[in-house]
Amino acid sequence: MSKKVLVLPGDGIGPEITEQAVKVLKRLSDEGAIDIEMEEALVGGAAYDAEGSPLPESTMQLAREADAILLGAVGGPQYDDLPRDKRPEKGLLGLRSGLGLFANLRPAMLYPQLAHASSLKPEVVSGLDILIVRELTGGIYFGQPRGIRTLENGEREGFNTYVYSESEIKRIAHVAFQAAQKRNKKVTSIDKSNVLEVTELWKEVVTEVAKDYPDVTLEHMLVDNAAMQLVRWPKQFDVMLTGNMFGDILSDEASMLTGSIGMLPSASLNEENKGMYEPSHGSAPDIAGQDIANPLATILSAAMMLRYSLGAEDQAARIEQAVSKVLDQGLRTADIWTEGTQKVSCSAMGDAVVAAL
Amino acid sequence: MSKKVLVLPGDGIGPEITEQAVKVLKRLSDEGAIDIEMEEALVGGAAYDAEGSPLPESTMQLAREADAILLGAVGGPQYDDLPRDKRPEKGLLGLRSGLGLFANLRPAMLYPQLAHASSLKPEVVSGLDILIVRELTGGIYFGQPRGIRTLENGEREGFNTYVYSESEIKRIAHVAFQAAQKRNKKVTSIDKSNVLEVTELWKEVVTEVAKDYPDVTLEHMLVDNAAMQLVRWPKQFDVMLTGNMFGDILSDEASMLTGSIGMLPSASLNEENKGMYEPSHGSAPDIAGQDIANPLATILSAAMMLRYSLGAEDQAARIEQAVSKVLDQGLRTADIWTEGTQKVSCSAMGDAVVAAL
Ligand SMILES: CC(C)[C@H](C(=O)O)[C@@H](O)C(=O)O
Ligand SMILES: CC(C)[C@H](C(=O)O)[C@@H](O)C(=O)O
Repeated sequence: MSKKVLVLPGDGIGPEITEQAVKVLKRLSDEGAIDIEMEEALVGGAAYDAEGSPLPESTMQLAREADAILLGAVGGPQYDDLPRDKRPEKGLLGLRSGLGLFANLRPAMLYPQLAHASSLKPEVVSGLDILIVRELTGGIYFGQPRGIRTLENGEREGFNTYVYSESEIKRIAHVAFQAAQKRNKKVTSIDKSNVLEVTELWKEVVTEVAKDYPDVTLEHMLVDNAAMQLVRWPKQFDVMLTGNMFGDILSDEASMLTGSIGMLPSASLNEENKGMYEPSHGSAPDIAGQDIANPLATILSAAMMLRYSLGAEDQAARIEQAVSKVLDQGLRTADIWTEGTQKVSCSAMGDAVVAAL
Repeated sequence: MSKKVLVLPGDGIGPEITEQAVKVLKRLSDEGAIDIEMEEALVGGAAYDAEGSPLPESTMQLAREADAILLGAVGGPQYDDLPRDKRPEKGLLGLRSGLGLFANLRPAMLYPQLAHASSLKPEVVSGLDILIVRELTGGIYFGQPRGIRTLENGEREGFNTYVYSESEIKRIAHVAFQAAQKRNKKVTSIDKSNVLEVTELWKEVVTEVAKDYPDVTLEHMLVDNAAMQLVRWPKQFDVMLTGNMFGDILSDEASMLTGSIGMLPSASLNEENKGMYEPSHGSAPDIAGQDIANPLATILSAAMMLRYSLGAEDQAARIEQAVSKVLDQGLRTADIWTEGTQKVSCSAMGDAVVAAL
């Protein structure tokens, strides 16, 4: 039976980049290499504009029915002044929590063809290959109580709650250790246990879970030190295991080390490996609609989708090889272009990947 | 009347690095260039070992009486398993909050003589000069409620509270804008307002305070993006204004961009400009007692102390020039040594700075 893929283009460059990934998936499907049905729906600012909500119930329903979701990006400055529950980000957060997508996998790897794009010295980043495993449905992102209240003295106070239970920590820790088993067998767990009780529990539970994985080395690192070490010598990391907020910060830092965030995919999985797949970069409203965005992160997200949610490892690898091939051919979108390579548009890049399959 | 300086060597390399800064201050005092009285006391693990508390009341009393405090560093692996309220960090946090040191100033600047030490490409970091203004006595570091509790289902849950009131945000914002007026007139305020209500209030209050400083440009940036932009193009920043936790992470990242965190001082000030001064780096227990640590961050912290708390701008500048001179002479401690320069010990570096005054 064919698998259902929900495509959520979203805002900004979202539509143009997902269009390229859809082209790639369609080609594999036309060939009979994969058996999928694709449907499209609105999310984020686009959904707010059309229906007054960043995550309409119709979209949520389709998302529940889908085997996997491919998302472009959400957000744009025109939505900045909306009330919090109408903002594009709320659509993304609603999908994550509504579908129980607790495991966010964010690879930060350097494509050898793009080594020069990094702001770091080549010897510091060449061969870089880090996987960030970020908890995505808990922590301070969803903790209660939260809000802005007025104190007795008349001034306002904003507050949020950073909270994790043992079971939440355990399940994301297992994901990290299992990922490490298939990689270089090292997990670095990030905390701020010298200050925050919630991360003291985090550290303790992760240490406990590690006992199930004697073949994996566990290391603990304070978040401030991790932010430093990523700059100093990022190749010391294999899998980084983080809570929601530290993962937000460190994964963005790590992806920028490669200098080509336009290349980095991500996956957000639930307990049954149903997943939402999206590029690590944002909606880039400043270049939206100009056909100059880099679609490769989205195309690589589609590859991750085939691997993790649709059981088509071989086709995932085919897409990844095709991407490597177009880079070898010297094709580059504007964000990764350098002297001596050929600048191509977003859609031309999509076509080139299809041709290279 | 002479000013009182309390010296708190602390743990690890703390004693050897403060000793060098004390040498420098003593020289200025012997010359009659400054009028200070120095006293020493215990803090951190050293205080715990001697008196069972990381911040004995006798130390706190001296700290209250002092005009300024010079701190080495606290912490070490032997204290990791102590209960939270006995750990060395608690001494530091107790001083910060007990003395109301809400304004943490952390410069991240690249010494031209050490440009090669950075893991970033020279063109990305040359001339780098960022000032991080971090709120230090509020936010999630001190928020209540906090702890680890057992839920009804029997599992434990850790929790902390991220909280800021308007007045806390206002006073640190003023510090940032005033600092920017003396620099490049730009403040980048860091938030995660798309997710956290507390930082939504932060953003709003900072925007309000900005109206008092029409000559300073205010920019808002999400913390994840800031972590990326520091790697991508750090020279876009002048003053970064942050809460306690984001400042902890981003200031460590920023200081590592320079590749020589052994060079970076910091100041923590209260409303009356009474301050605690310490190197940005930690206690480095692995190299403690070997006379190989870099004392320059501590010596430069002493310079900041003269400038901000003791009203001796000219002597502060003299110390800074002396540091620059020893670097020009090619003297380097192990952490910043490279081929062609002369490796010196911690104490020899201190002597060289005294000689260069
Ligand atoms: C858009 C925003 C809510 C989101 C997050 O903070 O998780 C984004 O930064 C990300 O990392 O996917
Ligand atoms: C030692 C620790 C409590 C402290 C902090 O987190 O503030 C340190 O990392 C710092 O930045 O001064």
